[in-house]
Amino acid sequence: MAPPTTTRIATSSASDIVVRGKSLTRELMGRLGFTEMMFFQVLGRLPTPAQTAVVDACLVALMEHGLTPSALAARLVYSSAPEAMQGAVAAGLLGVGSRFVGTVEGCAVLLERIVAGEPPERIVAERRAARAPLPGFGHDIHVPDDPRTPRLFELARAQRVAGAHVAAVEALSAALDAALGRHLTINATGAVAAALGDCGIPAGIMRGFALVARCAGLIGHVLEERERPAMQSIWEAAERAIPYDDPSNPRPGGGES
Amino acid sequence: MAPPTTTRIATSSASDIVVRGKSLTRELMGRLGFTEMMFFQVLGRLPTPAQTAVVDACLVALMEHGLTPSALAARLVYSSAPEAMQGAVAAGLLGVGSRFVGTVEGCAVLLERIVAGEPPERIVAERRAARAPLPGFGHDIHVPDDPRTPRLFELARAQRVAGAHVAAVEALSAALDAALGRHLTINATGAVAAALGDCGIPAGIMRGFALVARCAGLIGHVLEERERPAMQSIWEAAERAIPYDDPSNPRPGGGES
Amino acid sequence: MAPPTTTRIATSSASDIVVRGKSLTRELMGRLGFTEMMFFQVLGRLPTPAQTAVVDACLVALMEHGLTPSALAARLVYSSAPEAMQGAVAAGLLGVGSRFVGTVEGCAVLLERIVAGEPPERIVAERRAARAPLPGFGHDIHVPDDPRTPRLFELARAQRVAGAHVAAVEALSAALDAALGRHLTINATGAVAAALGDCGIPAGIMRGFALVARCAGLIGHVLEERERPAMQSIWEAAERAIPYDDPSNPRPGGGES
Amino acid sequence: MAPPTTTRIATSSASDIVVRGKSLTRELMGRLGFTEMMFFQVLGRLPTPAQTAVVDACLVALMEHGLTPSALAARLVYSSAPEAMQGAVAAGLLGVGSRFVGTVEGCAVLLERIVAGEPPERIVAERRAARAPLPGFGHDIHVPDDPRTPRLFELARAQRVAGAHVAAVEALSAALDAALGRHLTINATGAVAAALGDCGIPAGIMRGFALVARCAGLIGHVLEERERPAMQSIWEAAERAIPYDDPSNPRPGGGES
Repeated sequence: MAPPTTTRIATSSASDIVVRGKSLTRELMGRLGFTEMMFFQVLGRLPTPAQTAVVDACLVALMEHGLTPSALAARLVYSSAPEAMQGAVAAGLLGVGSRFVGTVEGCAVLLERIVAGEPPERIVAERRAARAPLPGFGHDIHVPDDPRTPRLFELARAQRVAGAHVAAVEALSAALDAALGRHLTINATGAVAAALGDCGIPAGIMRGFALVARCAGLIGHVLEERERPAMQSIWEAAERAIPYDDPSNPRPGGGES
Repeated sequence: MAPPTTTRIATSSASDIVVRGKSLTRELMGRLGFTEMMFFQVLGRLPTPAQTAVVDACLVALMEHGLTPSALAARLVYSSAPEAMQGAVAAGLLGVGSRFVGTVEGCAVLLERIVAGEPPERIVAERRAARAPLPGFGHDIHVPDDPRTPRLFELARAQRVAGAHVAAVEALSAALDAALGRHLTINATGAVAAALGDCGIPAGIMRGFALVARCAGLIGHVLEERERPAMQSIWEAAERAIPYDDPSNPRPGGGES
Repeated sequence: MAPPTTTRIATSSASDIVVRGKSLTRELMGRLGFTEMMFFQVLGRLPTPAQTAVVDACLVALMEHGLTPSALAARLVYSSAPEAMQGAVAAGLLGVGSRFVGTVEGCAVLLERIVAGEPPERIVAERRAARAPLPGFGHDIHVPDDPRTPRLFELARAQRVAGAHVAAVEALSAALDAALGRHLTINATGAVAAALGDCGIPAGIMRGFALVARCAGLIGHVLEERERPAMQSIWEAAERAIPYDDPSNPRPGGGES
Repeated sequence: MAPPTTTRIATSSASDIVVRGKSLTRELMGRLGFTEMMFFQVLGRLPTPAQTAVVDACLVALMEHGLTPSALAARLVYSSAPEAMQGAVAAGLLGVGSRFVGTVEGCAVLLERIVAGEPPERIVAERRAARAPLPGFGHDIHVPDDPRTPRLFELARAQRVAGAHVAAVEALSAALDAALGRHLTINATGAVAAALGDCGIPAGIMRGFALVARCAGLIGHVLEERERPAMQSIWEAAERAIPYDDPSNPRPGGGES
């Protein structure tokens, strides 16, 4: 038998809904914006206005980046199954994983170690020894620097939210550049990991904020897919780009396999 | 061959990201809150401050309603596959369909007909003839009235956003009550359909706003599931509530089948 | 309170698992192939060997069709979130909707009406009046005929399974061609709808067989994506095919909008 | 730019579909059963009849285990969004992760190490030092032994497929029991990992076979949910089992938090 469990999130009666001890209708609706309500629902405490501004900037930064694999998946699924918009959005969110915006979490874990006193050089050395990329660093398109990063730090400093985590990611960046002998950008997920960390949001839940930002962005792509379908173009472009290779074709390296 | 297609949402270069013609870093981050940015990304225009306040109230109203089927699905999936938070959130969103918050869309379509001049009585008669429920009306728990509805209308009026769509849902409610000879509440999805309609959001995209609100709420459930797992309790409770019925058991109505 | 509910599918004890009244280990494993077990689990009765052969042929026919939107979605999601193969498969299945293989169900419903005595001409007229396509007919690539269709009918006839439903789809095809004045192929989903119908599988569950066939096919695509990633190529091809159209660009029809 | 990529799976022309070099209609439909076709599509080679029998037994063993979290998630989603069966199946598959049947993969990786010559005692010691469970071992319900395991090994031996991987899991089991001083069952996923390993299926793709087996099982649950809905019962049972705990309630350990 499972031990007794409770939920601390919400309950409802005929005449009210209570979220973490507050009346939804009397204390939350009309008083909190979306970002404050999400912060409160997830973490059980209200953000300060400065934290709200920084979280908003993170969500805005992550919402949209064009025809990413996640947006493409959502559009392909929407045009294949237009009866269920939620399926298209779910497919897009399934692509918010360890390789793209999900790296916010991997970076945040490293920042916690630096905040706890570990030298950034040790983390850089450890990742290089494992031939593993440093999450939160580098970008295919935004070279030499991801433009979202300085803007986010500027806002976090203007709001006096920037603290140990922004300092940690900057120290990690310096250690990485020194080890590489060249500059690699702190990318948007690295910057978001630092900014959300300084807002008091635990590493383990940061991917959730990225998911919400991308969920909003996916709605725009689904709406555009409905009005101006791109699925057929994506499909044909992919088929042209990835031709069929018959098993009877000679394989590189000699002989047939 | 598919006809040429374009996207009007976003593009990026090495030094910037452009969303619907505006620079993400210079014109959007730090200037727009989450709700304004979502409105802009989805619809291509900025909301007024009053529209932002009403959309925020809708998102806050829909974010959380306790251990709904959607939240339960997310928690079951998270504890089964904790390696991928995005899978749990996707599973929860897949439950945002035609039966629950997805009804916002079904109601919005009816409100458009009333706004276009159709008498609400005809819509009520049509649904009753089809023995179909009226989307946006009725609630299992919130009897006689869903408390979110009057609060949302109060806020929409205070912001001077309430207009033809709020009037339409109130006319539909009066026609329904008259036909039934008793009162059935306008529920939260009916109220949201009216409020978002008066913010200029088309019916076809309203489910997207509900998905974003629920996506945020699901993050809180996933975090709680990680810290205080309920999956085993849900599983055992479900197994007790739904016992196995062997095919060799006698069936009601006589004989074995 | 919900009325008491039971499940008729399965239960388990310390020493056994019982599926629809039979011992999994003593009566099912080693005795049934996958297709027989699926038929038994879903429908509660065993298929005949001839029905198994026809269902197998349907599943084989639907398993693979190259880089479809569904396979593309699975591959995009897999490379974005390789930590969770189940997420990629789920994304691919979300594309098995009303537009592609999901049409098996829409066609099956029409075949039931013909089997029940309705003239196929009436159905053709009804769909044409509604300007709705006839599900199960037509194909972009397989012109003039989908090669899977005659092969499936040949197999169903050889197994003496072909009956009222295969006759119905052929009658519907004749009526459609007569109305159009040209030939439109019965496609694979139309043929599968007829073949599964003659195996006694209800229309409402046929999409489930299509989902299982495609699920198997998606595993192959996910494995290939891991070994020879195509995501980057798909992404770049899509971005080239769908350029960004700035809102400041002149719109067709004059002026800027 | 991404390097040129090809697919070795399938292509199609107007008159045929080619899967890994074979004509779907002339060489595959009517000749291969589902399991053979899946093996061929995924791995690019045909299984022997004995391998087919063993893979079938694995798929049958994994297809159904009652109201698991995965089945519950599918049923909750189906009744919330009945417009899209694929969404319910996708939600169920999202629960096929690292904690349940996904462990087949974790176990298979360990078996490869033993087959490559590593002593099983070292693996047991390593996992115990890390306080990590041994994937493929132990079961909450099936005590002292999972009944599927001996049955699967019996079938694999009867088919002369059992080899190094079945021997490896048995050696691992002996080493685990010796270290623990008590018996812990090889569970179904451990047995499947060994049996599929001896069929030549790589560890990295085994979760795919588990996904297909569960996909089939989920169809049965979705059909039962449509005919005899359990969602309301699951929901109410979960709400009763997991009461709301208000933040103003005294916390264990004293004081309010």
